[in-house]
Amino acid sequence: MLTAEQNEFLTNTDPGTPMGNLWRRFWLPALLSEELPAPDCPPVRVRLLGEDLVAFRDTNGDVGLMDAHCPHRLADLFFGRNEECGLRCVYHGWKFDVNGECVDMPNEPAESNFKSKIRTTAYACNEQGGIIWAYMGPKELTPAMPELEWARVPDSHRYISKYLIQCNSVQATEGDIDNSHISFLHSYVNVADRARQIRYQSGSQIAAYQMAQKSPRFTIKSTDYGIMIGASRNASEDSLYWHITHWLIPGYALVGATEPGGTSLCNARVPIDNENSWFFRIRWNADRPISEDEIAEYRFGGVAHAEVIPGTFMPKANKSNDFLIDRALQRSFNYTGIKGNVAQDGAVTTSMGAVVDRSKEHLGTSDSAIIAMRRKLQKAARDLMDGIEPLPAHDGTVYKVRPAGIILPRDVPFDEGARDRIKATV
Amino acid sequence: MLTAEQNEFLTNTDPGTPMGNLWRRFWLPALLSEELPAPDCPPVRVRLLGEDLVAFRDTNGDVGLMDAHCPHRLADLFFGRNEECGLRCVYHGWKFDVNGECVDMPNEPAESNFKSKIRTTAYACNEQGGIIWAYMGPKELTPAMPELEWARVPDSHRYISKYLIQCNSVQATEGDIDNSHISFLHSYVNVADRARQIRYQSGSQIAAYQMAQKSPRFTIKSTDYGIMIGASRNASEDSLYWHITHWLIPGYALVGATEPGGTSLCNARVPIDNENSWFFRIRWNADRPISEDEIAEYRFGGVAHAEVIPGTFMPKANKSNDFLIDRALQRSFNYTGIKGNVAQDGAVTTSMGAVVDRSKEHLGTSDSAIIAMRRKLQKAARDLMDGIEPLPAHDGTVYKVRPAGIILPRDVPFDEGARDRIKATV
Amino acid sequence: MLTAEQNEFLTNTDPGTPMGNLWRRFWLPALLSEELPAPDCPPVRVRLLGEDLVAFRDTNGDVGLMDAHCPHRLADLFFGRNEECGLRCVYHGWKFDVNGECVDMPNEPAESNFKSKIRTTAYACNEQGGIIWAYMGPKELTPAMPELEWARVPDSHRYISKYLIQCNSVQATEGDIDNSHISFLHSYVNVADRARQIRYQSGSQIAAYQMAQKSPRFTIKSTDYGIMIGASRNASEDSLYWHITHWLIPGYALVGATEPGGTSLCNARVPIDNENSWFFRIRWNADRPISEDEIAEYRFGGVAHAEVIPGTFMPKANKSNDFLIDRALQRSFNYTGIKGNVAQDGAVTTSMGAVVDRSKEHLGTSDSAIIAMRRKLQKAARDLMDGIEPLPAHDGTVYKVRPAGIILPRDVPFDEGARDRIKATV
Repeated sequence: MLTAEQNEFLTNTDPGTPMGNLWRRFWLPALLSEELPAPDCPPVRVRLLGEDLVAFRDTNGDVGLMDAHCPHRLADLFFGRNEECGLRCVYHGWKFDVNGECVDMPNEPAESNFKSKIRTTAYACNEQGGIIWAYMGPKELTPAMPELEWARVPDSHRYISKYLIQCNSVQATEGDIDNSHISFLHSYVNVADRARQIRYQSGSQIAAYQMAQKSPRFTIKSTDYGIMIGASRNASEDSLYWHITHWLIPGYALVGATEPGGTSLCNARVPIDNENSWFFRIRWNADRPISEDEIAEYRFGGVAHAEVIPGTFMPKANKSNDFLIDRALQRSFNYTGIKGNVAQDGAVTTSMGAVVDRSKEHLGTSDSAIIAMRRKLQKAARDLMDGIEPLPAHDGTVYKVRPAGIILPRDVPFDEGARDRIKATV
Repeated sequence: MLTAEQNEFLTNTDPGTPMGNLWRRFWLPALLSEELPAPDCPPVRVRLLGEDLVAFRDTNGDVGLMDAHCPHRLADLFFGRNEECGLRCVYHGWKFDVNGECVDMPNEPAESNFKSKIRTTAYACNEQGGIIWAYMGPKELTPAMPELEWARVPDSHRYISKYLIQCNSVQATEGDIDNSHISFLHSYVNVADRARQIRYQSGSQIAAYQMAQKSPRFTIKSTDYGIMIGASRNASEDSLYWHITHWLIPGYALVGATEPGGTSLCNARVPIDNENSWFFRIRWNADRPISEDEIAEYRFGGVAHAEVIPGTFMPKANKSNDFLIDRALQRSFNYTGIKGNVAQDGAVTTSMGAVVDRSKEHLGTSDSAIIAMRRKLQKAARDLMDGIEPLPAHDGTVYKVRPAGIILPRDVPFDEGARDRIKATV
Repeated sequence: MLTAEQNEFLTNTDPGTPMGNLWRRFWLPALLSEELPAPDCPPVRVRLLGEDLVAFRDTNGDVGLMDAHCPHRLADLFFGRNEECGLRCVYHGWKFDVNGECVDMPNEPAESNFKSKIRTTAYACNEQGGIIWAYMGPKELTPAMPELEWARVPDSHRYISKYLIQCNSVQATEGDIDNSHISFLHSYVNVADRARQIRYQSGSQIAAYQMAQKSPRFTIKSTDYGIMIGASRNASEDSLYWHITHWLIPGYALVGATEPGGTSLCNARVPIDNENSWFFRIRWNADRPISEDEIAEYRFGGVAHAEVIPGTFMPKANKSNDFLIDRALQRSFNYTGIKGNVAQDGAVTTSMGAVVDRSKEHLGTSDSAIIAMRRKLQKAARDLMDGIEPLPAHDGTVYKVRPAGIILPRDVPFDEGARDRIKATV
């Protein structure tokens, strides 16, 4: 339970807010590289942390991310011409390079020298792992790139989807690190269906563990990058099955119960504004390319990834259509009658309200990871108010972790027993 | 004319407001029984008095009406599984019975005992007359059911429609008890058309009276249940035709000019929130089943009842399409060019604004019923603030009245002359 | 650059605001005469200066413009019956004439004399030049009609379109008087295309001048009617090509670079409310009828005028669909990839925001006309606060000007050299 003030502190990332300042200390996934497929391609609208921006790829292939409004008279640069290393406003031809410098002002007499006085807000961009990353904070504090394994493997070893989610990013992340919901929200009426559906996601025996013990025991470890969450279920008389999840500040959850050599899952959540968030859903395998079977499953299976309305990132099953709930399906096949994990998560997460009122919630022991994540995020924002910069922003190596599913003897602490399994190798 | 403050007092039924408290002292029509057709059927969303609720029918056939948001993390229980005498949240399987008790909490370890500490807001429900009734006030003050004749006749003797009306319920009710508008809004260019159209509604001669005298004389009587309104028009030299309407606190109008043995009409209006209302339009006959001809007229005739957009309660003719006004029809056939009484009433009532600004109105003698109704409603809310409970909430028998149309000698007071005709017999 | 307060002062025309009072000192284009094509035709909704109104043409052909809400109970008179020299509310038959007098009140007993106490807000109307003009200010200050040439020529000499523009009228007008944008927003990749496209708009050589010199030099003259703007570009070694534009208080721009005997262009902008404006786009020729070729170009050419969604004044290319931008077209054909001047202007003007935040703009020398217009408008509103009435409201002859395109020797001041060309002759 949070007070209204605490909730606001936790969720408001608008410019000038404490949490907004914290998010602006990190490189953030802003858009997919493929959204800007070639030099001088059309610019695209990007809204991040409540700011309306425009992204473009210049003639050299460099990416610019600027205030959407031309500083002259505030026309939208989305309509702009992307040409010769800069984006031109179509109203009067003012042209800006990726650094926000005004490099041409053809409607003014050359002698006016007005051009030299004009620049626009432009944020540093970086491309890695199929993602265009943006840094929206003070230039002198530009952080290291987070050394996320999925962003460092070869492109063939990675598969990314992007979705628009109609709620605050924090409550979306709360779903990601909430292990106990797996036994319900994503479960099946018949456990065999569950096992079949997750064949491409992780192991085989897991569904049985999840259904047999719906109240896992949680152990939370505070780490340099955020928190590590161990959720244990009974495997045998002597052993526990551990599902190990990481939350990485400010908005990543490494959640797949990866087996050795298996494919992992990261959910990256970035605020569009306080009531909407981008969801980058990333599969990666450090050891091998994503297989054709896996890709087919992600793209067409409809379980692990979702279909979007063409030309948008809005899932076809969304809030406006009750996530296409099918009550007959709910009765006979799966727990929700909603198809696919993305829609299932979306249904519960957005139905709480765009920003859930945490003064009304009732948290139990199963919510310990959520409580720990919130505290860590709030503390980092408060620290920043006191002048203490967040560690991971300056040491990207702290992010070198991987999720895991592992069976351990009951008396072995999970972080020790899984030490090698949760290290990123790339 | 009301001041802005008086208008707010009259129309605001949100939780904690004086008028909201008053409405919460009565059993209210919440939804149709047929919306929950069978045990364990899908739950439905219900919004009442500004509160988002979910209704479900449990395995025993009992109806629950609860806060839409699960108290755990506020996911919407609309997505829930309705099974084994309770509604389960699909997020973590928390299950609530119709009383709001948490009867299962499978994601928590059994020893945590957290379940016993959790209950959710659930309102008492009752089923009668094809309606699921809800009581949203303090439990210890649970009132008697209103003994409305239409709710007590056999199901065969009743026909109900339900509509979503896009304005505050009070201004919708003001239309119901406003007799003089019948001579205009629902009239025809040719009086013969009027007579033909109302053949299933009430008498035959009525249209002629209504068109011959467009300014009826009003006599208002204050009653235990609200007010009784006599609107008189000239019938012959020695006699008056009386149309007798009742307003029953908080939101019923008995409006059909029922002839002996005829079918009556009740318009029940319940606030969805301050800017929208439910409209239950009820026909009943105390003496016989509703005839096949009547049903055909209500269902397909398009005059007395309205067609809705399938799967919703939104009339096809609504504010978004100017109630499908047809200007050629308006010129040659009926007064408005709008088809059907529900749409005609909807057009004028919603076009005033979602909550009409009563500081701008100019009321005449024809508005005496409206003035009396408002005073009664405001007084009841003020009384409640002083600790005086509304009488009809505790004696349901005061509602045993019926509307009537009757010809009386000019010197006979209408309430005496119609005494037997306005008594409900069931 | 304006402060937030100055911006509000400039753009807010709601009742009671200083700028709203100023606008209410002028006859304003309210709707097209053809929207009320015949006596007793259906009434239409009109929103002007933030007021919801209804317009109707009575049996005599006179136009009424009244408060949309009937003063009785505030039902919308849009649904009214227009008959026998008055508009009747369909709720209770109250009838109003074009002066706002209540001329019938059939639901009240005749002896109540209530009718004589009721009148509604009605604004004076006038018809001229295919336009219904409204005066919304104090009756005793009713101004002279502006002697705009386009409103005084025979109907055959004029062509008018009307559009709904989704932004404040002032920023729309700023685009009209901003000459330098022509070299960009409305330009073509290939100058020959430009010349071809403007064949019906003005001269032949103009496109070459506009493309050769994208930074015209501005000379602004303050006038009785507003401002006169001379934008000069090099024509030859000894001569300048002058494009002469007028801004007429409160919302007209005469903008076509008319050649002798040519057809001129006026853009009239009227606030619907602070976030939307009516755009009347008027072609006229003082000397001859608009030709069939010109009409074909305006109606079907798609360059100078725009297609609207049938039954509305909303351009098909609008904010909701990014003005149908075509990126391939933008690369190969025209500067924007948007078809037509109306859509091109609409794209930049509305994308600034419904009311552009002028505290963020950066104005250069090319914006001198915009600066001068704002000052004039603000000064007139301040003067009015001090009791000084605006001159043009009382002497309609000051509006007798015409735009022009003219080549003059370099040493001849444009207002002298073009003296005869900028006089209206009708």
